[in-house]
Amino acid sequence: MKGGEQAFLDWLARNAAKPRDLPVPIGDDAAVIRVARGCDFVVTTDAIAEGSHFLRTDPPRLIGRKALAVGLSDIAAMGAEPRFAFVSAALPHRFPPALPREITRGIRDLAALHGVVLAGGDTISHKGGIVLSTTVIGRVRKGRAVTRSGAMAGDVIAVTGALGGSFARRRHLRFEPRLREARALVKLGPPSAMMDVSDGLLLDLWRLTRASATGARVLAERVPVHADAGRSAGKALERALSEGEDFELLFTVAPDRFRKILRGWRLDVPITAIGEIVPLGFTIVEDGVERMVEPRGFEHR
Amino acid sequence: MKGGEQAFLDWLARNAAKPRDLPVPIGDDAAVIRVARGCDFVVTTDAIAEGSHFLRTDPPRLIGRKALAVGLSDIAAMGAEPRFAFVSAALPHRFPPALPREITRGIRDLAALHGVVLAGGDTISHKGGIVLSTTVIGRVRKGRAVTRSGAMAGDVIAVTGALGGSFARRRHLRFEPRLREARALVKLGPPSAMMDVSDGLLLDLWRLTRASATGARVLAERVPVHADAGRSAGKALERALSEGEDFELLFTVAPDRFRKILRGWRLDVPITAIGEIVPLGFTIVEDGVERMVEPRGFEHR
Repeated sequence: MKGGEQAFLDWLARNAAKPRDLPVPIGDDAAVIRVARGCDFVVTTDAIAEGSHFLRTDPPRLIGRKALAVGLSDIAAMGAEPRFAFVSAALPHRFPPALPREITRGIRDLAALHGVVLAGGDTISHKGGIVLSTTVIGRVRKGRAVTRSGAMAGDVIAVTGALGGSFARRRHLRFEPRLREARALVKLGPPSAMMDVSDGLLLDLWRLTRASATGARVLAERVPVHADAGRSAGKALERALSEGEDFELLFTVAPDRFRKILRGWRLDVPITAIGEIVPLGFTIVEDGVERMVEPRGFEHR
Repeated sequence: MKGGEQAFLDWLARNAAKPRDLPVPIGDDAAVIRVARGCDFVVTTDAIAEGSHFLRTDPPRLIGRKALAVGLSDIAAMGAEPRFAFVSAALPHRFPPALPREITRGIRDLAALHGVVLAGGDTISHKGGIVLSTTVIGRVRKGRAVTRSGAMAGDVIAVTGALGGSFARRRHLRFEPRLREARALVKLGPPSAMMDVSDGLLLDLWRLTRASATGARVLAERVPVHADAGRSAGKALERALSEGEDFELLFTVAPDRFRKILRGWRLDVPITAIGEIVPLGFTIVEDGVERMVEPRGFEHR
């Protein structure tokens, strides 16, 4: 415990919200959460590190923002509402007091937009760069969490937004977690399975099919490629399929329900069908040719 | 996402417990927790880093064990029962597959002892050493969490176990979180305030008095000094007062209730009165002389 950490904890406590479902003031050994009836809790933990998920030269506010945003994206992918965030920060020795404050401001600004309370955390210093670990707790109606294991053969595979080029234009630091879109999908659908695209469309879709014990057939031409992915069509598609950090929603839903979702869709972010769930096999159709895909080939390095 | 991380996630999923209050299999975007009625949730997040809280040469199992133990200690200090743990690990690039497994085994072994389920986590690689961040979720009867803000003038100040020398003999890697002791204190008392001693007795006690808007008077001769703190009486006392990482419970309770606790105490770990809560001022009595203490002087560097 260094003086800077105590000062930061004090600042955090002074600036803390005091909602009714958080009956003990922030800064105790643990946060106390009053549970709403008829709800399940949804909990996700993600870590981001300097050099791997952001650069030392990135603005600390955006680093903090991203630390929370990746967690909100997971909560959205469960069809849940985020409520509390806990952030632990490992910061370089002798960090300036402004560093944790700016990180926290980035977290708080995004949290406030989504009704999320920063309810606790821990700050340590170490020999190394910035590592932020965020736990987000959300709520969902009992039994209504949307998992990645419910896809059925015949379901449409679809995504929100457009994919690829997230790093090139630094979208990965500023992306909007798809909470509104998830809410609309649950209301209009719900999807049979859902997850967010963090490690690349094909790898994440492969995980979804594995959890659901199905296969998938992706139509390459249908995949919405982001303008950030570049002008070379081949490279742009490759980025959209496998680059990752898109943080769009990937979901499956029966065809009739997908039509119902499309009819009811009022949000700016588009949704696009990109293929279908099949009983077995993981394939992609490109220029009229269907080929097997090895998902391992799409892990980004 | 590297191959080693996917392999680790697979291993984690295969070895996951499937309790009834965790209805979705591990490995989804988030864990789903079924909430028990009449309970508050208690949530704590702690980070430990190589070079600051353990050494690169320490056994990975003990590093994992400590990552969970510090969280369990916080849950104990709230008078709550731990139930779920979430661990995010930032590991050095090209870590061997055995590293996350050994860390996880250390977590699991301690978790199993206390009925805790490792319900999720995240593993990333980065340019730097091992950083582990643990979130533990526990349960407590609604409104019964023991905070650090309930101390009243006249209360006895007491601790479990003995303090000091936690680093010298590496006790900080093997300490037993005081869950049983906290349970007994809650049953026999409960304490008016409680916290764990992580940053040094005086600094943590000062935090407790600040949260409770009281003062404290500590009798140096009464402080139980651990045998690990060394043979020089003066240095040993200094270590017991300010070294930290003891992870003993520090609590306050009205004198009549303290006597009741002492009468009913059946555990091996002793409890010792070390002073009293006073309306104002933070003092220590040593060799018959009472002097003011500046808590900032006891932050360990």
